[in-house]
Amino acid sequence: MALETFSNPRPERDYDIVIESPEFTSVCPKTGLPDFGTITIRYVPDQLCIELKSLKYYLLDYRNKGIFYEAVVNTILDDLVAACAPRRMEVTGAFTARGGITTNVVARHPA
Amino acid sequence: MALETFSNPRPERDYDIVIESPEFTSVCPKTGLPDFGTITIRYVPDQLCIELKSLKYYLLDYRNKGIFYEAVVNTILDDLVAACAPRRMEVTGAFTARGGITTNVVARHPA
Amino acid sequence: MALETFSNPRPERDYDIVIESPEFTSVCPKTGLPDFGTITIRYVPDQLCIELKSLKYYLLDYRNKGIFYEAVVNTILDDLVAACAPRRMEVTGAFTARGGITTNVVARHPA
Amino acid sequence: MALETFSNPRPERDYDIVIESPEFTSVCPKTGLPDFGTITIRYVPDQLCIELKSLKYYLLDYRNKGIFYEAVVNTILDDLVAACAPRRMEVTGAFTARGGITTNVVARHPA
Amino acid sequence: MALETFSNPRPERDYDIVIESPEFTSVCPKTGLPDFGTITIRYVPDQLCIELKSLKYYLLDYRNKGIFYEAVVNTILDDLVAACAPRRMEVTGAFTARGGITTNVVARHPA
Amino acid sequence: MALETFSNPRPERDYDIVIESPEFTSVCPKTGLPDFGTITIRYVPDQLCIELKSLKYYLLDYRNKGIFYEAVVNTILDDLVAACAPRRMEVTGAFTARGGITTNVVARHPA
Amino acid sequence: MALETFSNPRPERDYDIVIESPEFTSVCPKTGLPDFGTITIRYVPDQLCIELKSLKYYLLDYRNKGIFYEAVVNTILDDLVAACAPRRMEVTGAFTARGGITTNVVARHPA
Amino acid sequence: MALETFSNPRPERDYDIVIESPEFTSVCPKTGLPDFGTITIRYVPDQLCIELKSLKYYLLDYRNKGIFYEAVVNTILDDLVAACAPRRMEVTGAFTARGGITTNVVARHPA
Amino acid sequence: MALETFSNPRPERDYDIVIESPEFTSVCPKTGLPDFGTITIRYVPDQLCIELKSLKYYLLDYRNKGIFYEAVVNTILDDLVAACAPRRMEVTGAFTARGGITTNVVARHPA
Amino acid sequence: MALETFSNPRPERDYDIVIESPEFTSVCPKTGLPDFGTITIRYVPDQLCIELKSLKYYLLDYRNKGIFYEAVVNTILDDLVAACAPRRMEVTGAFTARGGITTNVVARHPA
Repeated sequence: MALETFSNPRPERDYDIVIESPEFTSVCPKTGLPDFGTITIRYVPDQLCIELKSLKYYLLDYRNKGIFYEAVVNTILDDLVAACAPRRMEVTGAFTARGGITTNVVARHPA
Repeated sequence: MALETFSNPRPERDYDIVIESPEFTSVCPKTGLPDFGTITIRYVPDQLCIELKSLKYYLLDYRNKGIFYEAVVNTILDDLVAACAPRRMEVTGAFTARGGITTNVVARHPA
Repeated sequence: MALETFSNPRPERDYDIVIESPEFTSVCPKTGLPDFGTITIRYVPDQLCIELKSLKYYLLDYRNKGIFYEAVVNTILDDLVAACAPRRMEVTGAFTARGGITTNVVARHPA
Repeated sequence: MALETFSNPRPERDYDIVIESPEFTSVCPKTGLPDFGTITIRYVPDQLCIELKSLKYYLLDYRNKGIFYEAVVNTILDDLVAACAPRRMEVTGAFTARGGITTNVVARHPA
Repeated sequence: MALETFSNPRPERDYDIVIESPEFTSVCPKTGLPDFGTITIRYVPDQLCIELKSLKYYLLDYRNKGIFYEAVVNTILDDLVAACAPRRMEVTGAFTARGGITTNVVARHPA
Repeated sequence: MALETFSNPRPERDYDIVIESPEFTSVCPKTGLPDFGTITIRYVPDQLCIELKSLKYYLLDYRNKGIFYEAVVNTILDDLVAACAPRRMEVTGAFTARGGITTNVVARHPA
Repeated sequence: MALETFSNPRPERDYDIVIESPEFTSVCPKTGLPDFGTITIRYVPDQLCIELKSLKYYLLDYRNKGIFYEAVVNTILDDLVAACAPRRMEVTGAFTARGGITTNVVARHPA
Repeated sequence: MALETFSNPRPERDYDIVIESPEFTSVCPKTGLPDFGTITIRYVPDQLCIELKSLKYYLLDYRNKGIFYEAVVNTILDDLVAACAPRRMEVTGAFTARGGITTNVVARHPA
Repeated sequence: MALETFSNPRPERDYDIVIESPEFTSVCPKTGLPDFGTITIRYVPDQLCIELKSLKYYLLDYRNKGIFYEAVVNTILDDLVAACAPRRMEVTGAFTARGGITTNVVARHPA
Repeated sequence: MALETFSNPRPERDYDIVIESPEFTSVCPKTGLPDFGTITIRYVPDQLCIELKSLKYYLLDYRNKGIFYEAVVNTILDDLVAACAPRRMEVTGAFTARGGITTNVVARHPA
């Protein structure tokens, strides 16, 4: 689903927005089993802010998608940057343990 | 309600005051449903300090006001800066989950 | 009560001493009701260290004194600096909630 | 077992991968008794990412190996750097208490 | 008891070793009553690492020794620096409350 | 707003439903200031279960109502019992601190 | 998917098995949005124990199924009782917040 | 100060009221030094409930009173029972550490 | 290795001994991969107490043994009961997550 | 040192006193190494209460005494029962880990 935005109410000021979604789930392309994790988005908006309801539906689209952890985080970052052109953005995916091993991925724009 | 101030007892020294109000509530302008959150104010006073009782009543005025998260935090920052002209101030709003998604907003003066 | 000091056993080395007193209480000058809080003192001694027992009695002297939060922290900092002339010192007062609002005050020497 | 890698899906961007394995165990070469700990690997991939399943089997190979804490952490760092040539990597071993004493070892590449 | 050392297995790399001993006890020289605390040692070894068993016995030697907090931490730092000549070292003593007041002491080499 | 119910899908079995609403707020009839708390409802349904959305709107009706803690909890219990005639029900209100004092109220049906 | 069982290795002794699955997800039949929760199964086996891998696949089958909380818990209990005829069993579903309200459901066999 | 009461709004139902005051302080009659603790009152009201503001002032009266822990808890229980004649009441005092030793006292009516 | 015992120093009194070993590991007979968990033993000794060092070596013997969770707990209980004939004993195995599912097993003697 | 007592101020009422001493240390008779733990004493006084300062000195006497965990707890219970003849008493020793294994001992009077 398409990400929507709204006009930043204070574009003249640098400020931070932090959004946390602990109910992220996608599918491992190798095993076909579900992955679970928390996605955290931290950004300084420029002219546009991310609309939360469309973000929720955007994240829901991963529910039955086969995709690796690294691609999840980098793709969300790319899509959000494309949608709202933030001054700075960081996306973190903190995934639950598989085989006794836990993985986090953190990507930033600009790198 | 009007924010009140009192004279900073040590204007010759830079020091920090941190005020946390975990009982903030306002109304979502889109759904008409209440929002809840914790407002944290961190500042270095110049000539004036914020009087706590008037701050409490000032925050109570948001109880039945329709306003988005980003505007809550930026407006509180603007009003407090106007009232006490601090050397530095940061306002954080940590709002409770909606649709499984949690949002924080942090604004600073000077930016 | 007078603050006492003893000779710093290692004046040739910069090191930190952190003292936490979670049983601080004073009286609000406006309402006459008691305030409660934790006082934390963090310093690098020069020639003198603060003697703990005299510090305990010094803090006890606030028990029935009417004084605001900002003055508590700045006065403790002033008195301790006068007593031991530290290289650096920071005093924090973390006071319990009043009217649903919590306040911390942090002052440093040199500012 | 050999560490495997896969192509970094976003080599043009610096991003972090953090992998935590709380089920690490090896053997103390002095006493012959097992050691237990959590291994955390934090890195910025260049062209290659570490494949998680091969990492799991690689760490399992320590289960019956006699090796000191310092060597565990430095060897894992060396092997992982050799396998994936990361831009930056940090390996931490947080080992459980022995004789009432807990030890952590942290090594970084480049140093 | 004498502190023992062993050869650093990776002297060509700067890395951290953190050792925590939560079962430290000594005696207050003023009251004759026992003091309790956690000693944390964080260092970058040069040619030598501290051997853990000898460290344990070294710390046990404080059990019936009358010594103030500041001297405990500075003496442990001096002895360990003398024994292993580390590139950097920090010793922290976090002592339990006495008279409702808690004290931490932190010393570093080089200062 | 009216509480709604739906048919218990397993009336032949005694089972527990526990509902927690941490965003409850009402108004103190004495001071006119808002109260905040968490309402927890624990019940064994008979023929009817409480519909959650109507419960949410029912609890929202207290937002601007002047009512004491004891009456809040007993009234919610009465209204829920009237709406769904449960086999057993317990309502707890855990209210935030006022004047440094915290209050919980717990009522049960049948008493 | 079918639940599988294996022979209880100690049928002559009453003992407890507790299985927790924090990655449960299903779909709300009213809104079409996903629900998330933790399913806990506590039972005393008779002749048969639940095989964990088949339980995992059984729970995965709820991922795209529209079903209410009360039915989730009672259906899992019914299916598990049918599969392994335990001496006693309790199933708990602890679901994440929706509209600021959290729901747990607990069912037992025999009731 | 005198404890005040108000009419129990639901005398026909047994229900619990739990009041916690973490800011209790009195004076040790032996040393003259202040004691600190949390007083918790749990009761089933009969015809009368304890009014919170008068309870707060009642507890404040201990601030400069010399009294042992056991007497604090038993006296508060006696005074509250005399004031409101509850069906059941339990008073707990959880006092902070002195000389490394922590004390709780719990008294109940009827015993 | 053989479990050793020593004479109960107070056989005329029923008292509890609780032993927790968080570093248990065995091997899954199906996958050949290691399992990890915490074993807790709670018992009332009769004439004999379990000697801790021999218990440690006894538990170490599971390190490379292929055995299911249910058998681990029931076998430890059987072996300990055979060794020390306690008045009552309970053994709990709390195993770490596999495939997102956590399992505990609890067995008691007499059942 | 001798345990002292004082007259129970409310012998006509059964009430609980809970004393926790987290700074207990003794010596293992087998290894000569120190043991550490928390001693918790829970009792209903009859005519006498335990005086805290003498209890503190009584517990200090174990500092250089060689004694096993089971004997520590049973001896403390015996000595306290002999000193104050309580209606009921329970002594718990929660000792820190040795060889990765933690032990608690709990004894009660009357058994």
